[in-house]
Amino acid sequence: MKILITYDISGTDTTAGSRRLRRIAKVCQDYGERVQYSVFECTVSEATYELLEAELLAEMDEKEDNLRIYRLIEPVEKHIKEFGKFKATNFEDPLII
Amino acid sequence: MKILITYDISGTDTTAGSRRLRRIAKVCQDYGERVQYSVFECTVSEATYELLEAELLAEMDEKEDNLRIYRLIEPVEKHIKEFGKFKATNFEDPLII
Repeated sequence: MKILITYDISGTDTTAGSRRLRRIAKVCQDYGERVQYSVFECTVSEATYELLEAELLAEMDEKEDNLRIYRLIEPVEKHIKEFGKFKATNFEDPLII
Repeated sequence: MKILITYDISGTDTTAGSRRLRRIAKVCQDYGERVQYSVFECTVSEATYELLEAELLAEMDEKEDNLRIYRLIEPVEKHIKEFGKFKATNFEDPLII
């Protein structure tokens, strides 16, 4: 199944916050693709989903952050519209916004 | 139909960037709810969707930002999992991350 993971992290100007975002991104990228700074599309089986969820919960700070996981309609490309700058962002750079 | 709007904005430390985020949020909130800093769930008819898309495109900077709109499976609450801090964020505050 295809899922969309969106993540609101608190305090990415701190070492702890930026580390959480980096680690969450790494977990997600093991299962899919980063499509925005804190939005990831992942492909998982039901069983793999359980592992992914457990890994995400281990990395996030439940008191500070918010994590949402949506099941997507497939095929995803028929149910998404995208506009603007596409994948040109270097997600490895420090976040300066 | 239910849609999810995710938005990567460039340069929210600038007047132009923060204004774009504020305006995009205002457009989305006319049709739904802000669930994360740059993630919105909206309910629209097919006709209303066209209006919403036009309004979003008018506000965004296609050279700088990225906008993704996903059609969601309904009922949404059966196809989403949420973890962590929930809606405690004051989205009106300036973004400091």
